[in-house]
Amino acid sequence: MEKVLARDVISFIEEFAPPDLAIEGDNTGLQVGGDLEKPVKKIGVALDPSLKVIKRTVDEGVDFLFTHHPLLKDGVKNFEGIIYEKLKKLISKDIILYSAHTNLDICEGGLNDALAELYNLKDVKYLYENGLGRVGIYEGDLEEILDITERYICKNPTVINSEVVKNRDILKVAVLSGYGLSQKNIEYVSKVADVYISGDLTHHARILAEDLNLCVIDGGHYGTEVYGLKYFSNYLKELGVEVITLDF
Amino acid sequence: MEKVLARDVISFIEEFAPPDLAIEGDNTGLQVGGDLEKPVKKIGVALDPSLKVIKRTVDEGVDFLFTHHPLLKDGVKNFEGIIYEKLKKLISKDIILYSAHTNLDICEGGLNDALAELYNLKDVKYLYENGLGRVGIYEGDLEEILDITERYICKNPTVINSEVVKNRDILKVAVLSGYGLSQKNIEYVSKVADVYISGDLTHHARILAEDLNLCVIDGGHYGTEVYGLKYFSNYLKELGVEVITLDF
Amino acid sequence: MEKVLARDVISFIEEFAPPDLAIEGDNTGLQVGGDLEKPVKKIGVALDPSLKVIKRTVDEGVDFLFTHHPLLKDGVKNFEGIIYEKLKKLISKDIILYSAHTNLDICEGGLNDALAELYNLKDVKYLYENGLGRVGIYEGDLEEILDITERYICKNPTVINSEVVKNRDILKVAVLSGYGLSQKNIEYVSKVADVYISGDLTHHARILAEDLNLCVIDGGHYGTEVYGLKYFSNYLKELGVEVITLDF
Amino acid sequence: MEKVLARDVISFIEEFAPPDLAIEGDNTGLQVGGDLEKPVKKIGVALDPSLKVIKRTVDEGVDFLFTHHPLLKDGVKNFEGIIYEKLKKLISKDIILYSAHTNLDICEGGLNDALAELYNLKDVKYLYENGLGRVGIYEGDLEEILDITERYICKNPTVINSEVVKNRDILKVAVLSGYGLSQKNIEYVSKVADVYISGDLTHHARILAEDLNLCVIDGGHYGTEVYGLKYFSNYLKELGVEVITLDF
Amino acid sequence: MEKVLARDVISFIEEFAPPDLAIEGDNTGLQVGGDLEKPVKKIGVALDPSLKVIKRTVDEGVDFLFTHHPLLKDGVKNFEGIIYEKLKKLISKDIILYSAHTNLDICEGGLNDALAELYNLKDVKYLYENGLGRVGIYEGDLEEILDITERYICKNPTVINSEVVKNRDILKVAVLSGYGLSQKNIEYVSKVADVYISGDLTHHARILAEDLNLCVIDGGHYGTEVYGLKYFSNYLKELGVEVITLDF
Amino acid sequence: MEKVLARDVISFIEEFAPPDLAIEGDNTGLQVGGDLEKPVKKIGVALDPSLKVIKRTVDEGVDFLFTHHPLLKDGVKNFEGIIYEKLKKLISKDIILYSAHTNLDICEGGLNDALAELYNLKDVKYLYENGLGRVGIYEGDLEEILDITERYICKNPTVINSEVVKNRDILKVAVLSGYGLSQKNIEYVSKVADVYISGDLTHHARILAEDLNLCVIDGGHYGTEVYGLKYFSNYLKELGVEVITLDF
Repeated sequence: MEKVLARDVISFIEEFAPPDLAIEGDNTGLQVGGDLEKPVKKIGVALDPSLKVIKRTVDEGVDFLFTHHPLLKDGVKNFEGIIYEKLKKLISKDIILYSAHTNLDICEGGLNDALAELYNLKDVKYLYENGLGRVGIYEGDLEEILDITERYICKNPTVINSEVVKNRDILKVAVLSGYGLSQKNIEYVSKVADVYISGDLTHHARILAEDLNLCVIDGGHYGTEVYGLKYFSNYLKELGVEVITLDF
Repeated sequence: MEKVLARDVISFIEEFAPPDLAIEGDNTGLQVGGDLEKPVKKIGVALDPSLKVIKRTVDEGVDFLFTHHPLLKDGVKNFEGIIYEKLKKLISKDIILYSAHTNLDICEGGLNDALAELYNLKDVKYLYENGLGRVGIYEGDLEEILDITERYICKNPTVINSEVVKNRDILKVAVLSGYGLSQKNIEYVSKVADVYISGDLTHHARILAEDLNLCVIDGGHYGTEVYGLKYFSNYLKELGVEVITLDF
Repeated sequence: MEKVLARDVISFIEEFAPPDLAIEGDNTGLQVGGDLEKPVKKIGVALDPSLKVIKRTVDEGVDFLFTHHPLLKDGVKNFEGIIYEKLKKLISKDIILYSAHTNLDICEGGLNDALAELYNLKDVKYLYENGLGRVGIYEGDLEEILDITERYICKNPTVINSEVVKNRDILKVAVLSGYGLSQKNIEYVSKVADVYISGDLTHHARILAEDLNLCVIDGGHYGTEVYGLKYFSNYLKELGVEVITLDF
Repeated sequence: MEKVLARDVISFIEEFAPPDLAIEGDNTGLQVGGDLEKPVKKIGVALDPSLKVIKRTVDEGVDFLFTHHPLLKDGVKNFEGIIYEKLKKLISKDIILYSAHTNLDICEGGLNDALAELYNLKDVKYLYENGLGRVGIYEGDLEEILDITERYICKNPTVINSEVVKNRDILKVAVLSGYGLSQKNIEYVSKVADVYISGDLTHHARILAEDLNLCVIDGGHYGTEVYGLKYFSNYLKELGVEVITLDF
Repeated sequence: MEKVLARDVISFIEEFAPPDLAIEGDNTGLQVGGDLEKPVKKIGVALDPSLKVIKRTVDEGVDFLFTHHPLLKDGVKNFEGIIYEKLKKLISKDIILYSAHTNLDICEGGLNDALAELYNLKDVKYLYENGLGRVGIYEGDLEEILDITERYICKNPTVINSEVVKNRDILKVAVLSGYGLSQKNIEYVSKVADVYISGDLTHHARILAEDLNLCVIDGGHYGTEVYGLKYFSNYLKELGVEVITLDF
Repeated sequence: MEKVLARDVISFIEEFAPPDLAIEGDNTGLQVGGDLEKPVKKIGVALDPSLKVIKRTVDEGVDFLFTHHPLLKDGVKNFEGIIYEKLKKLISKDIILYSAHTNLDICEGGLNDALAELYNLKDVKYLYENGLGRVGIYEGDLEEILDITERYICKNPTVINSEVVKNRDILKVAVLSGYGLSQKNIEYVSKVADVYISGDLTHHARILAEDLNLCVIDGGHYGTEVYGLKYFSNYLKELGVEVITLDF
């Protein structure tokens, strides 16, 4: 078998999740990395480049770490504390860290498409023009949607305004992987869907959803993203390199 | 007994929660109101001026509604949908809506002080210079803190990094009523306290807390605010007017 | 005769003055309104949604108020004083308030076209690329232009630099309904026209016009807008509903 | 008699109207000038450095021009058209142009004090904290105020809401020289005075004044400033140099 | 021979260096000028409208001054000191000052093309999308490039990292007339060229160039611009008017 | 002998150059560092944390690197290329990088004071209110000043307008270590000094200095800073640890 180089892994990822799909300002792509010509023997996949994940990365002998969330959202110019520890572990072991963030949410077969497929939505469209989220038709009732959610996304989802869609047997459903339950999103989705499945519902957003009579299912930031990440992990295995998951 | 005017109710509130304590840009004070000379016979108290609360306000014959959260955070210039409905209900019944937001969090005996007292903290100080939050010493262990939280704040609090403070029998505890679990707050609190009790923990903030080894208790935005609001409702009863609560 | 619903009135207005003609940031469209399915029996038309106009609206039993100027330019988040009074009167009588502002200035047959027609301008073009104002050829002298102005726009117009165009019997004339006499506008118009008819001349703008040798006729904000509003009122009568004017 | 140098004239002006009284961003002080050691024989005083004024400045042999309004509000980097003509006339004759703008409005004995004195106001205070405008008590009725206005400020002042103060024989009166009739000013003054005398009323400001029931007298930007400028001209004569006025 | 008017000179310049090529915000075009119909007998060409240049302009009887750099980058609103002196000299002699700045850098045959031609670059392209700078192939070694630089641009150029391209006999070379050695430019050029010739190298930029292993030749702001200006001066002679150079 | 910890070195530096002297936004303090309790045996001192310096740091076995300039001015969120290489070298050898930037320029005995002392200035004051630069009296002529400059700062300084101060035997001299020759600085210094010694003169600044008749000596960014850094290196030796210099 041929050697797989870091450069090859990146190309393979970017074929699936083209970087130019990412929304403006998103920190997607190479996070930490020196020599892209080095051979890769073990890929780690995680939702977050947390300290715990990075420790496991080292312990498991991973030499290429893929995470959905980037290492940093804003730039730093002083290296101490957590960022020092993370960089020390990665750099001293020559581990490459690469992230595909909103491009992986958006791309064909990505995290949002995975949700649309899980719920077997019909006539699926982008929820937003930039490609984030999906909206489509669910032929069935809320009971069934909750059943799927509990089985595949999160054991105890929070549900708001379930009574609004009671007795409906065809529903317009919006999904958005990760943090989709901002007030702005809820306001928008209330005009285009009956049920909205996403993550990270906070108090003010909940009150707004109640005011707007939108049925919201909070399946968790983690749950709504990890579901699609599993598929992506399987895709990476096609590279012929060992792939392990680190936080799911 | 003397008549109590709307103006009197406002003065009485502002004695407790002086408006100039509010942080800059906060929408605190009179939200909706015409004639402040009208007599008040029934005061309603709520966390949020939600449509549900406003409907109950009308149904219960309340003529002065006090809420902790303001009606609007940003200004509007077109009146349709939810804001139209809310204004219609309030204005057509001459109901006054008044909010005391961050000034009620900050003031002596306010929502943050109520939490500090609940946990029986010693040597209590402001968490932030502007008066938001409190930090003090808890003479006991995490087990006891969780017990108090479950009994008075929220039945199933989320707890992060409990193992970090295991076997400690004196703890530095920070509390902040409402939404205190932003990443910025967690970063700051990790430097000044062992345990942080507040509300609205989201995914990225949780990962940060884990990275920083901060023990976080999410008692809910609702739970951490309503506890102190109950005290405030009792204070309002001293006006000699009927006081009812509408969402707690 | 069929019932005319609020929704129908709005469609009829928007056929004449399409909302997407409005310049960016303009507050055009529905200002205050609940049920757009309610039947409309009497439409009121006014330049401004002043308190005086709104009182007459109520007194005259108007159920749909159209104004050229919007209710608010900037958003509000506290409802007391004038805005409370206005909303109370409108909302408690279920009166809909709808404005067509710059789209009515700009549209075909709108306030600017009305001025161009009044002065019988030839070879008429947009004064600005966005559609505001008109500029064309007047075949005659200033004397005649002033005569038309005094008869149809305002009895005592202010005239600057009339001597500059004396003895000219063909003139390039610019018109702009409402507030067109800003320094920026005067600077621009001085390069493209001989005479500029608009409203709201202030001291600094007058000095600039004098410096630039531009002949300016201030026919008043009110006068230059009301002339075209009358035509628009007549258009509304085609709906088959009673139409009254409230401030002109 | 001793020679009076340009430098002396400036010192004399700044004794009366100290430059550090000017509001932030105001272009006050030396506008155009080379040699401040040159002797001054004739001072011209004007409200505006208009082309007409500058032409008279040259024709009259003035060598030091004082204007209340500055030459430019915003900077220029290309010199053609009006600004070229103005600079050419001033520079080629070595005429110094000096302005005292808001510092002359604000200072003791300046344009606002002149108005307060004209109306014989009692218990006079600053209208704004920065020193602009004055507010005081007029012991008499509106009739008398209008009489003074017509005699000393402007023949045909515009009066709004006179009926609001009819039959009042003691009035709280605010004055502000120049452009004081913005919507923001009117909103503020409506809370602190019964009658507001200033200049440059436009349509939207008039509607607001009507809504707020504030009695407004528009005596003109020109009229409300020139009244005090006359006093200032007399002050300049104490220098022992010929002083002429150029646009009043 | 026909008279050449100022207007003709400007047209002739703008044929060579079209103003709309200039980058946004650049102060290009007429700097100081009254009557564009006046005949021009002597044109002066300079890099900078310095006081020394303007003095020579007057002394030499020049009536049209062309400079590459504009008179002012930011607007002024007070005329004293240097700008007063410069304007006085220009205006009192009716001298027109016209600048073609980045449009002359960018245009065909302009300052950047002149450098590309001097170094005999092959396969020349724009360095930046906006037309600034050139990049092409030099068939030879660094020794030769330095030789050309010393002969035509500047006697003692500063050279950084010459060792990096030692022994190379074909080099990718970038040139940018004037101030091209900012850190941002060096970062960019390090990715697209082997050698970078421009002006105004400062300490931090030098350290960056060293870190990035980019071979930099600082031929001076003056040297890299004056080379092309000489060609432009010759072009102006085709007008049939005397042309002299003033600072090169 | 006692062990010296990283923490001790930092305290010792901050005693000399207190961090709160630094100007706002400056990146001063700990740049890269994990364990501040580690013993330090060899300190390296350099002007810049360039790759070359960092390589020597590693080669020389330095375990604490002090530089005047910070590692980064703006934050980064992706670690590849130069920053990756620098961090790799520092982190993998546990080298601490600490910078004292503007606080070292400003502090008593710092880089600016060193220059003031070198030129033996009398009656020395801050050049700017924030403490940057010094201005004082030199009792002697320019010849002597240039002599000192050439001997201690830089062999071939650039001198502008030397003729302006010829024959003067007492001079007001301003010094500013590093990049002090911006146009803004030159404009300011031209009003308060006769001679200005600093670094990084560029073309436009030179022209301005010529226009303003200010005598400028460009002794180089490097030269004007390294002079004082030598003194600071000697101060560090008092710690009893080996101190070596790396780029001077």
